[in-house]
Amino acid sequence: MQSILNIPFEHRLRFVTGVFEPGCGALREFLSESRDESPARAILFFDDGLIGANPHLPQSARRYFDLLDRDVELVDTALVAGGERCKNDPAVLRDILQRIHDAGIDRKSYVIAAGGGAVLDAVGYAAAIAHRGVRLIRLPSTTLAQDDSGVGVKNGVNAFGKKNFLGAFAVPWAVINDLHLLRTLSDRDWVSGFSEAVKVALIRDATFFSRLCRDAPAIRRREERVAFDAIQRSAELHYRHIVHGGDPFETDQARPLDFGHWAAHKLESLSDYRLCHGEAVAIGVAIDTVYAQLVDMVDADLCRAVLDCLSVLGFELSHPLLDEAVTLMEGLEEFREHLGGQLTITLPRGVGRSVDVHRIDDALMRQAIGYVGQVEMSGRGVPEDGVIGKG
Amino acid sequence: MQSILNIPFEHRLRFVTGVFEPGCGALREFLSESRDESPARAILFFDDGLIGANPHLPQSARRYFDLLDRDVELVDTALVAGGERCKNDPAVLRDILQRIHDAGIDRKSYVIAAGGGAVLDAVGYAAAIAHRGVRLIRLPSTTLAQDDSGVGVKNGVNAFGKKNFLGAFAVPWAVINDLHLLRTLSDRDWVSGFSEAVKVALIRDATFFSRLCRDAPAIRRREERVAFDAIQRSAELHYRHIVHGGDPFETDQARPLDFGHWAAHKLESLSDYRLCHGEAVAIGVAIDTVYAQLVDMVDADLCRAVLDCLSVLGFELSHPLLDEAVTLMEGLEEFREHLGGQLTITLPRGVGRSVDVHRIDDALMRQAIGYVGQVEMSGRGVPEDGVIGKG
Repeated sequence: MQSILNIPFEHRLRFVTGVFEPGCGALREFLSESRDESPARAILFFDDGLIGANPHLPQSARRYFDLLDRDVELVDTALVAGGERCKNDPAVLRDILQRIHDAGIDRKSYVIAAGGGAVLDAVGYAAAIAHRGVRLIRLPSTTLAQDDSGVGVKNGVNAFGKKNFLGAFAVPWAVINDLHLLRTLSDRDWVSGFSEAVKVALIRDATFFSRLCRDAPAIRRREERVAFDAIQRSAELHYRHIVHGGDPFETDQARPLDFGHWAAHKLESLSDYRLCHGEAVAIGVAIDTVYAQLVDMVDADLCRAVLDCLSVLGFELSHPLLDEAVTLMEGLEEFREHLGGQLTITLPRGVGRSVDVHRIDDALMRQAIGYVGQVEMSGRGVPEDGVIGKG
Repeated sequence: MQSILNIPFEHRLRFVTGVFEPGCGALREFLSESRDESPARAILFFDDGLIGANPHLPQSARRYFDLLDRDVELVDTALVAGGERCKNDPAVLRDILQRIHDAGIDRKSYVIAAGGGAVLDAVGYAAAIAHRGVRLIRLPSTTLAQDDSGVGVKNGVNAFGKKNFLGAFAVPWAVINDLHLLRTLSDRDWVSGFSEAVKVALIRDATFFSRLCRDAPAIRRREERVAFDAIQRSAELHYRHIVHGGDPFETDQARPLDFGHWAAHKLESLSDYRLCHGEAVAIGVAIDTVYAQLVDMVDADLCRAVLDCLSVLGFELSHPLLDEAVTLMEGLEEFREHLGGQLTITLPRGVGRSVDVHRIDDALMRQAIGYVGQVEMSGRGVPEDGVIGKG
């Protein structure tokens, strides 16, 4: 016997300002989409970094639930260590699971996670494995989580020294991007998420890429209207890929939106996570764009525009780890292993399009890494002569 | 934004005799369904109980892989503690994951699990969370795993004192039922799986139910031809439910094939797993069938036939734990919590059909439990007068 099972999942995404304001309907709406009349429970996990900057949030959340005209009880709120800590320490995962257990969360109840990508990954993983999966509502609180990972279907923690070795694909019950949560981000965290916007624009949307190049200075200055537009467009492109890309659970080799990520993952781990994901992605995108120029997939002007845009946004592209090209390039094999099968690397082909390649020329990749390692951080991002030597 | 994702999974099921015989093509076929040309790896986990009775199996498996004309390397074979031990001890799960990691299993590689339901659950869970899911081939080695659980999409381990608190829904890459693996089962394990056959026959297939009643003595005597037919039909009915039932990942309340299981789960845990799953299901099916008679859903003849069939197969229906009806009935709430929302219990309505009920009459259920607790084990299963008193 051999049959195809088609398993339908619903994916909901909203943009709001002030998710716990009594007038904000998004959370109320998502909490009420139950198929029966029984009361539900909810547990809310906050990234401790988010609460450090917004100590009033737990109280606002409790008030929001108190005022709800739905039969949903907020049973518990808890803090989770933000950043990669929560994914590296098995005790954090155990604590999250213990709280979900103790709160009596069932498959019609809600785990709500408010925080950066790492906290969403760890709490999301716990929600995916408790009772074989309970409802997860994500409230991403960083530019990175709002414009990319928070919209996705991946959850996981690190194990055996490997990033995301343990995890689960699970479609979140809902994602609510509250743009006001971004106001208290440090400048570093603010900038960090825009490398994923540059990434997706370059391979999917030429108009968006031009707009990002134009708006980079305003985004760096944290002009909200401009920045929110960029985050929203990036999130939409990522959402569209998940919903319409045809392979959300990655049974295929290709991960078209992981352009620039083989190097990024390796740089994060080589730097002991001192480089955050968005910063590492900026370098990874720069490396693969330079490589794409070396193999004639993008022209010199486009390559310069990419490096320039990242640099103007505030990313430092040269990094001492780029001096160790051979070590960095071990990331290619690790990237292959995570998906299995053949190596598949997505590269830009011109602007707004991409192509998958299955072979990387070692010498040219070393050259690309070396080049990015030398980029002068003049605030313009590209060496004076702007020419990438070939061979 | 709100969209439905339809995620397709392929489910493959075969019946064979002698899965590691060089002439058996099932495993070779499933190992080769790769979409690319790259070599794959495999790791094979054996239930230690299976190897105790069949010490030659690991060597047969290695020879099978040696003779394969496919580019698949058997990197490692390992033993896993059989029975509920492997689901209760977190160290076992950690060891399985460590081996999967060390073997370099990726998403195009294979985790093969040969064993009873508990080993399939634990190894399957590890395969579901490693790299967010690698390919799992199940070789169920008990009647219970072949005619029910091995065909399903559930994986998991116990935690916080709750059965299957941690787990994942994941469609196995393939299931191969090797009927010869059943030959070395103890009589107790042999009988155990047929309660699930009685269960699914009673609510789905009247003809199959009649056949089981007729064949029960031959099955108990381990007449292979008769028994294999029953296992195959039960597996098909369970497979059909997974593939065509519309809700394989149980987002709905109802679990129509979990008829009899609320009491079974509670009996297993109350007995500290001295009652095995199939034995507990036999008692659970008996209780809910008697309850169904008390609420006029099945007639006295059918109720007597069910208890008789179970009894002739070799199940003991009366058990000291049935003296504690109130404690046992806590299982109703625990069953509700695992799925969330409203209580939903499936009961037979006549033979070959079922109905979901959302309310259980406490007094009648206590009476049903008490009745099954008094069943004389005469080898016929039903008290002389054969009448279940009402009120």
